[in-house]
Amino acid sequence: MSLLFAGVELGGTKIVCALAKADGELLERIQIDTEAPEDSLPRIKAELQNLIDIHGPFAALGIGTFGPLQLNRSASDYGRLGPTPKLLWRDCDLYRYFADWLTVPVALDTDVNAAALGEVKWGAAVACDSVVYITVGTGIGGGVVVNGQPIHGLLHPELGHMRAPRAAGDDFEGNCPVHTDCIEGMAAGPAIVARWGKQLDQLPTNHVAYAQTAHYIAHLVTNSILLLSPGKVILGGGVMSNKNLFPMIRKNVQALLNGFIAVDAIEKSIDQYIVPPGLGGNSGVLGAIVLAMTTRD
Amino acid sequence: MSLLFAGVELGGTKIVCALAKADGELLERIQIDTEAPEDSLPRIKAELQNLIDIHGPFAALGIGTFGPLQLNRSASDYGRLGPTPKLLWRDCDLYRYFADWLTVPVALDTDVNAAALGEVKWGAAVACDSVVYITVGTGIGGGVVVNGQPIHGLLHPELGHMRAPRAAGDDFEGNCPVHTDCIEGMAAGPAIVARWGKQLDQLPTNHVAYAQTAHYIAHLVTNSILLLSPGKVILGGGVMSNKNLFPMIRKNVQALLNGFIAVDAIEKSIDQYIVPPGLGGNSGVLGAIVLAMTTRD
Repeated sequence: MSLLFAGVELGGTKIVCALAKADGELLERIQIDTEAPEDSLPRIKAELQNLIDIHGPFAALGIGTFGPLQLNRSASDYGRLGPTPKLLWRDCDLYRYFADWLTVPVALDTDVNAAALGEVKWGAAVACDSVVYITVGTGIGGGVVVNGQPIHGLLHPELGHMRAPRAAGDDFEGNCPVHTDCIEGMAAGPAIVARWGKQLDQLPTNHVAYAQTAHYIAHLVTNSILLLSPGKVILGGGVMSNKNLFPMIRKNVQALLNGFIAVDAIEKSIDQYIVPPGLGGNSGVLGAIVLAMTTRD
Repeated sequence: MSLLFAGVELGGTKIVCALAKADGELLERIQIDTEAPEDSLPRIKAELQNLIDIHGPFAALGIGTFGPLQLNRSASDYGRLGPTPKLLWRDCDLYRYFADWLTVPVALDTDVNAAALGEVKWGAAVACDSVVYITVGTGIGGGVVVNGQPIHGLLHPELGHMRAPRAAGDDFEGNCPVHTDCIEGMAAGPAIVARWGKQLDQLPTNHVAYAQTAHYIAHLVTNSILLLSPGKVILGGGVMSNKNLFPMIRKNVQALLNGFIAVDAIEKSIDQYIVPPGLGGNSGVLGAIVLAMTTRD
C-alpha cells in the first residue's frame, strides 16, 4: 500500500482539501468556501478526519495559504498568519492548530510558493532549476522555487507590489491600499474593474484595458527574468484565464528585454516559456501535497 | 599542509589573481589591467604558474567574470562569453582556455554571483539563506545566492536592466545602449556623468543627482526584496563607494515598501540590512576562491 498525503489550499474565497498518492494522483478533492477561521478551521479538520476514516491515515499534511505568513522554522510564531488584509484571519496560528491535532508532520508555505512547487513537480515546470509562478486575480502574488526549494528568506516573495513605469497615457491613480499604483494596484482584477467598470472578459479584446494590463504584467515578468533568470514563468489566476493576454505579454517582454537575454527560450520559443499552469486549478493543492511529501519535520 | 585554491576575478578594467587557504586567508593577490584576451589570458596563466612555482599546486581554480556567460554545464559552449559589450572578449572560451591547461577543476560564474558567494561565505551575509549583491559602477549588475548556490536558471541575473518609474522631474533620456532608460541607463556611473557632466563625488551632496540616483537604486533594491526576500542586500561598486547614498536609498526603500514587509530587518534595523560589502574590494576574488572550493568537477 502506497503512502498517502493530505494537502490544504487556503485561499481568500475558497479552500481545497485533497488526498493524493506520492505520484500526484488525486484520490479526493473537496472545495469549500472560506469563512471566518472559527468556522473554517473545524470544517477543514472534519474534512481531513473524513479522509482518514475513508482511506486510513495520511503520512503528512501540507498547507498552502494566503499570507503574509511566518515561515522561519526557528521563530516562536512559525506558521502564524501576519497582517493579512483578511482581517478575521490575522494572527491565526495555522501551524499550531493542525500540529496540535495531528501526530504526523505538518508543512506550510504560501499558496503561491506551493503552486510553484506543484508546477515544478508535476506541471509546466518539470525539470526546471527555477520557476516563478505569478497569479493575477483579486491580487497579484508570486511564488519562487529554486533548486526544488520554495524561496523564503526574510519573509517570502510579494512580487505584485513592485512598481513599473506607467503605460502610455495611463492616468489611473491605482487602488492598492498600501502602495496605490504598484503593479497589483494597476493590473489586478479589482484595479481593472475600478478603472473600467467591467472585468477584462466583458471588454472587447481591442480595448486599451488589455494593452495596459499586459504592459504591467510584462514588467513584472521582465523584472523576474532579469533578477532570477527562471527556467519557466507561469502565469495563473482569474485575470490570466483570459488567454488573449498571453500573446500580448510575451510580445511586451521581448520588447522590454530587446534581445539582451539572448537565449532561445525568449527569442524563439517564448510561447513555451511564459505559460499557463500545467496543473490548471490544482497547482496550489498539489503543491501542498508536495510540501507534505518533502517536509523534514 | 592545508589545501590552496586559486581565484581569478575578470573585470572590464582590472583582473585580480589570488591564492587563498580554505579559511579565506589570502596568501597572494595580484592586480593587473584588463587588455585584449590574447594579452590578458597568457598573463593570467603566467601569474597562476608563478603562484604554483612559489606555493606549490592549488586544488582548483575559480573564475568570476563579466558576462554574459554560458553557465549551463551540459552546453557545448559552457564557460564561453556571450555578446558582451567588451567586443574583444566576445565568444572568448574562458573555461576551455584554463581547463585545457590545468589538471585541477576549473569553476566559473559571473563576477557578481562570485561576489555574492564571497559575501555569504566570509562577508556581510554570513548565515543568510539568500543574498542579493548589486554593484553600481560602470554598469549595474547583480548576483544572487540562494541556499549557498549562485542563481543560474536560463542565463544568470542581469538585474540592472529593470525599468523603474522616473524620479519626479527627471527628463534624462537614459544611456543604456540596449534599453535606453532602464535603471543602469539612469543611475550607473556613465549615466550620471552623461547627465551632469560630473561624477557624484564631484557634486555637492544636496545636488538632485543624489536623490535621483538613490531613487533608481532604491527601486532595484525594493524589487529584489519583493521578488526574493533576501536575508541581506549588499550594494557595492564605484558609485556606491559614495557613502552618502546609503541612508537615502534605505529611506526610499522603506517608503516604497510602506510597512508591507513587516519585519524588523526593514522596519527597525535597515542599516544592517542594506549594507556595503563586508569584504570591501575582495568580494569578487574571494568568491572565485569559494567557487574553486565548492566545484563538483
